[in-house]
Amino acid sequence: MSSFFIATGARVGFAGGKFAKVDLARGDHLMTGLNCFEPGQAQAVHAHAGADKFYLVLEGKARMRVGPEEAEVGPGTLVWAPAGVPHGVLEAAERSVMLIGMSLG
Amino acid sequence: MSSFFIATGARVGFAGGKFAKVDLARGDHLMTGLNCFEPGQAQAVHAHAGADKFYLVLEGKARMRVGPEEAEVGPGTLVWAPAGVPHGVLEAAERSVMLIGMSLG
Repeated sequence: MSSFFIATGARVGFAGGKFAKVDLARGDHLMTGLNCFEPGQAQAVHAHAGADKFYLVLEGKARMRVGPEEAEVGPGTLVWAPAGVPHGVLEAAERSVMLIGMSLG
Repeated sequence: MSSFFIATGARVGFAGGKFAKVDLARGDHLMTGLNCFEPGQAQAVHAHAGADKFYLVLEGKARMRVGPEEAEVGPGTLVWAPAGVPHGVLEAAERSVMLIGMSLG
């Protein structure tokens, strides 16, 4: 299996308690992975000092917050969380899968 | 319009000559955008010193290279290009849309 070409669909997985985090690739400067939510699951609002992050919603529907803004997100929504700006998933309304990318170092 | 919540589908666009690049968001540490290819268009193999990058194929089909590896990619394939490793799109077989994320600074 290649470490350069990764089939994301085969890596999706859910967990009963907390939402599931799946690492896809990690370098010295950037990481990418999946965040997978069952309906009702959430990710506490948090911030990363010195690291920019985005989510791309691949499947599902969820309510998210970035800074002072909240939105209902679905497939194709890119959620941009600049360094230091609090962000999180208030609640997944459906099974939701998000690709994340975050700067490192 | 929010700068935190971005509808990527509304930003897709193609160009007649070279493939189209669309910036979606840019911070001090990370940028994200779309690369949109008409059938037959390519992106020359290139490398970024000190910057990791990935592509997530959203639509279409294309032949890509990373380092010594080549693959036919389609929706859901994540293509990981670590800093310094040459990568590119040899040829799009169909109209193809890829989300990219790249570390900065």
